[in-house]
Amino acid sequence: MLGLIQDRPLLISSLIEYAGTYHGDVEIVSRTVEGPIHRTNYRNVNSRAKKLAQALGKLGVELGDRIGTLAWNGYRHVEIYFGVSGMGAVCHTINPRLFPEQIAYIANHAEDKYIFVDLTFVPLIEALAKELPNVKGFVVMTDEAHMPESSLDNLICYETLVEAEDGDYEWPVFDENTASSLCYTSGTTGNPKGVLYSNRSTVLHSFCVCTNDGLGVCNRDSILPVVPMFHANAWGIPYAAAMSGAKMVMPGAAMDGASIYELMEAEGVTLSAGVPTVWLMLLGHVKENNLKFSSMNRTVIGGSAAPRSMIETFVNDYGVNVVHAWGMTEMSPLGTTGNLLKKHDDLPEDEKIDIRLKQGRAVFGVDLKIADDDGNELPRDGVAFGRLMVRGPWITSGYFRGEGGDVIDDEMWFDTGDVATLDPDGYMQITDRSKDVIKSGGEWISSIDVENEAIGCPGVVEAAVIAVPHPKWDERPLVIAVKEEDHPVTREEVIAHLESTLAKWQLPDDVVFVDELPHTATGKLLKTKLREEYKDYKLPTA
Amino acid sequence: MLGLIQDRPLLISSLIEYAGTYHGDVEIVSRTVEGPIHRTNYRNVNSRAKKLAQALGKLGVELGDRIGTLAWNGYRHVEIYFGVSGMGAVCHTINPRLFPEQIAYIANHAEDKYIFVDLTFVPLIEALAKELPNVKGFVVMTDEAHMPESSLDNLICYETLVEAEDGDYEWPVFDENTASSLCYTSGTTGNPKGVLYSNRSTVLHSFCVCTNDGLGVCNRDSILPVVPMFHANAWGIPYAAAMSGAKMVMPGAAMDGASIYELMEAEGVTLSAGVPTVWLMLLGHVKENNLKFSSMNRTVIGGSAAPRSMIETFVNDYGVNVVHAWGMTEMSPLGTTGNLLKKHDDLPEDEKIDIRLKQGRAVFGVDLKIADDDGNELPRDGVAFGRLMVRGPWITSGYFRGEGGDVIDDEMWFDTGDVATLDPDGYMQITDRSKDVIKSGGEWISSIDVENEAIGCPGVVEAAVIAVPHPKWDERPLVIAVKEEDHPVTREEVIAHLESTLAKWQLPDDVVFVDELPHTATGKLLKTKLREEYKDYKLPTA
Repeated sequence: MLGLIQDRPLLISSLIEYAGTYHGDVEIVSRTVEGPIHRTNYRNVNSRAKKLAQALGKLGVELGDRIGTLAWNGYRHVEIYFGVSGMGAVCHTINPRLFPEQIAYIANHAEDKYIFVDLTFVPLIEALAKELPNVKGFVVMTDEAHMPESSLDNLICYETLVEAEDGDYEWPVFDENTASSLCYTSGTTGNPKGVLYSNRSTVLHSFCVCTNDGLGVCNRDSILPVVPMFHANAWGIPYAAAMSGAKMVMPGAAMDGASIYELMEAEGVTLSAGVPTVWLMLLGHVKENNLKFSSMNRTVIGGSAAPRSMIETFVNDYGVNVVHAWGMTEMSPLGTTGNLLKKHDDLPEDEKIDIRLKQGRAVFGVDLKIADDDGNELPRDGVAFGRLMVRGPWITSGYFRGEGGDVIDDEMWFDTGDVATLDPDGYMQITDRSKDVIKSGGEWISSIDVENEAIGCPGVVEAAVIAVPHPKWDERPLVIAVKEEDHPVTREEVIAHLESTLAKWQLPDDVVFVDELPHTATGKLLKTKLREEYKDYKLPTA
Repeated sequence: MLGLIQDRPLLISSLIEYAGTYHGDVEIVSRTVEGPIHRTNYRNVNSRAKKLAQALGKLGVELGDRIGTLAWNGYRHVEIYFGVSGMGAVCHTINPRLFPEQIAYIANHAEDKYIFVDLTFVPLIEALAKELPNVKGFVVMTDEAHMPESSLDNLICYETLVEAEDGDYEWPVFDENTASSLCYTSGTTGNPKGVLYSNRSTVLHSFCVCTNDGLGVCNRDSILPVVPMFHANAWGIPYAAAMSGAKMVMPGAAMDGASIYELMEAEGVTLSAGVPTVWLMLLGHVKENNLKFSSMNRTVIGGSAAPRSMIETFVNDYGVNVVHAWGMTEMSPLGTTGNLLKKHDDLPEDEKIDIRLKQGRAVFGVDLKIADDDGNELPRDGVAFGRLMVRGPWITSGYFRGEGGDVIDDEMWFDTGDVATLDPDGYMQITDRSKDVIKSGGEWISSIDVENEAIGCPGVVEAAVIAVPHPKWDERPLVIAVKEEDHPVTREEVIAHLESTLAKWQLPDDVVFVDELPHTATGKLLKTKLREEYKDYKLPTA
C-alpha cells in the first residue's frame, strides 16, 4: 500500500525559486574576473537563471543536453548552475586546470553543446576550438564592453544573451531522477570519468548539507566556498545556500591568502570550505600580518587530510571550529563530517583535536562500511582497516556512458578506493589508498603509516613506501627515501628508527635511497611509477 | 536523460538504523505509566524495534497492515513507530482523548489488525473491544509484572512479545512511497479522516526538521516533545531526533507543569514543542515557584496561535527563543516556522516580537500561496488575505479510503481552510478560518479581527462574529456577545468601540447579547452552531 502524499519531484529549480521568493534580498557577492566586486541577490539570480533558461531554449538546448562551463566561483556561474539544471539540461563543470588535451577529451566525451567560459579562459578555448567540433558556441561570461577580440566566430556575450529575455518563465516540472549536472573525475590511470548527478540526488544532498550534523548551512551564514564550482559542485554549497537563504561570497580567480582574507572580513563570512593547501596559504597570510578572523566561526576542510597543526591553529589560535570532511566526486560529494558530538564537550582540548583529526562520521543518507578483500564487513573498533565502501541516494551507480564498467556490487556498495578504520562512534580515518596498501600474508600494512614514520627519521627528507612482490608473504614493504643533503643516513638507521613505533611485521624489508621521487601535477607521490620501476626488485628477505 | 545515481529508497528504518549505529549510546528517557523514569538508548531502541518487527511478522502482520496505538509519549511508543513502519506496516496513532465512539469508528475505518495500548487505556479498550471485530489482539505496553487483570482474552504483553525474539533481522527494502503511518484528523463536521504518510514523505520531512531553518534538531539537543505522538507524529520529532542523534525525553502521561519542568531540568532539555495551552501551564508553574530554565534554549509553539504575552515571557523573562510554527496533520505537519532572519538582528526587541507573533515562513519543500475564491494568487504585501493553499512532497494528496473526495486541485494545491496574509519576506499570519470569514461585496472581513476588537470593549466578556446573509452585500458581520455581569453595555457602545480601530465597511451591522456562547469540547467557539441559529436573522441594514 502506498502513502497518500503528493507526488512532487525534488528539483534543483525549486531551490532557487525558494531562495528568490523567501530570501530575495540575501546577497551573492562576487569578485569578478573583470575587476570590481559585484553584488546581486537571490531574487535577481532566480530571475536571471530563468532568462538564461529561456535563452538556451531558443538556442535549441533540450532536456538532457550537456552545457559545459570553464569558470571560477562567481554569480554568473551560479546563474548557470540553476538555469541549466532548472530547464532540465545538464550543467557540466570542467576543471580548467586540467591539461588542454584532457579538457578537449572531456568536452567531447560529454558532447557539450555550448560551453560557458570566464574571460580568463577565452585563450584556452581559442586554442582548443578546432578539437571541439560538437560545440555550437562559446558563451563568454561578461558584458559587451568586456568582450574580447577573438579568432573565433562563435563567441556569444553572456549579458546580451541573458538580458534579451523577459524572465517570464515557469520552471518546468519533470522526473526528479533527470540528470542535472556532470563532473569528471580523474584517477591516476585511464581517462577522466563522468559522474552524472540527478535533480533528486542534488536536493537530497542539499538537505544533508543544511542539517547541523552536515555542515549546518543556514540563513545566518555568509559562506565563502574556496572550493571551486568545478570540483564536485563546490561540495554542494551553492545548492545548500539557496535552500537555506545563506549569503554567498564568491572569490573569482583571486585565490591567494590576501584576497580571500579581505573578502572574508569585508563580507562577514561565517563559513568557508576548501582544501588544506588553500588554508595553509590563508593561515600564512593571517599569521604574517598578525590578523584574526572577526566573523568566521567554522571552516570545512576536505579534499585531503588536514594536518594536525592546521586544525590546532584554527581552533586554538583563531577560535574557528574545523569541520574535517571527507567525500568524493562520486558522492556528490559529502560522505563524512568531523563534527564533535555532545558527549565530547568535556574532553581536554587535545583529545578533541584527536577526534577532529579523523575524517568524521557518516552523515545520514550515506551507508558506510569497511570490508576485507572478500567483502566481509570488518569491526568498527578503530583498529581494523579495510576497503571503505559506500552506498546511498547521492552516490554514483556508474560513470557516464558506461566508462569503467560496473562500479557497484550486488548490494549497491561502491568501493571508494580508500582504506580506512571506523571507531565505535563511527569516526572514520583513512589510512591508505587500497592500491597502495601492502598485503603481507593476509595482513594489511598502511603505506602512509610507514611513510609518516620514515619521514620522522633524522636525515630523511621524503619517503615513499610501496609493496614489492615477495615469494612467501605475497607483498612486503619497501621504503624509497630521499636523503637530506650531506646527511649520511643509512638503511639500518631508518629501520632502527621505525622499530620504535611499528610492529615487527610492519617493518620494511628494505630501504633504498634515490635522488628524487616522482610526483603528480598536484604534488602527490606517483606510486604507480614507483611500483612499475621496482616491480622486479629483489628484497633481501625473498 | 536520467542521472547515474544509486536508486536507494528513503525509508524510515534507515533513520533508526543510523541512530542505532552512529548514536548508539544517546539516551531516550521516559517517564513511564508504571511509575519510574526509564532510560534506554538508540542502540537498544533499534534492536528492540527489530525484535518487534520479527514478532509482528509471526503474528501475521504484512506489508501495508495497519497497527493501532493508544499511547503516551514513551520509549515503547518510539519502538513501535520504527518497528511497525520499518517492517512495511502502517503505524496508526489514535488520539485517546477522542470520544470512545470516535475511537471505535477510526480503528474500524483503518481496519487495525492489532492495537498497542498503554496501561492507562486498558479500561477504554475493554469497553470498546466488542465494537472492534477486526482487531486480532491488544498489546499492552508493559511487562508481565504489570499486566492487568482483564475481561479480554486477547491481551498480549509487550515485553514478552518483544523479548521472545532474537533481533537478528535486516530491515526490508521496499518502495519509498510505501505507506508508513496513519493519523486521523477531525474537522468540525463529518467523520474523522485519515492522513496516510509514506516512508519518503517522513524522511523528507525529517530532513526539513533537522535544518536550521526548520527546527534545527541536532545531536547537541535534548528534546522534550510535549506534543503527543498521536498528534501528527509529534510533529515529526521522533524521526528527526533519530536522524540527528538527538536525545529524547518523553513525558508519558504526566503533562502538568511541575512534571514537565522537572524532566526538563533533570535531563538538560534544550528544545521542546507543544501547543499554547501546555506552555501556559508550564509558565504558570515556573513563575509561581520563581524558577528558571537552565538548559532550554528554544521552544516550538504550534497547534494554535501563540499569544504575544507568552512569546514575550519566554523571550524576555527566560531567554528562551520561541519558534512559532504552523502546520497541519495533512502536512506531516510542518509548513512554516517563525525563525528570525539574519537581517532582523538589529531590530528593537519589540519589533522582533511582532515578527515572532506571525506564524512564520514556509520551510523549503512547502509551496505556499494565498488565493481568492477563484484561485487567483494574491499579493505578498502583508495586507491582502486569502485562502491559504499548500503543495509539497510531504502534503496529503487525499484522505484514506477516499474520504472527503478530491482534496487537491489540478495544480496539486491543497486548501488548508485557513485564511492568511503573506508579507514580502514570506511571513504568514493566519487571520481566520475560510468558513468563518465574512464575504461582504467581494471584500473579506476577518471574523477573528472583529472578535478580538469586540472583546476589548468594556463590559464584553466574550464575543463571536459570524456572517449573516444580506440582500445587497451577500454577507455582513454580526457580533454575538456575552455581557459582563451587572454591566449594562449596549449595542451602540460596542459599535462605537469598534469604530476606533476598524474600517467602516468592517463594522458589524448589528450586535446581539446572549447569556452563553456554544463551544467545542476543546473550548473553541462553535460557529457552525451560531451560523445555523442566526441564518434567518434580519439585520437592521437589510
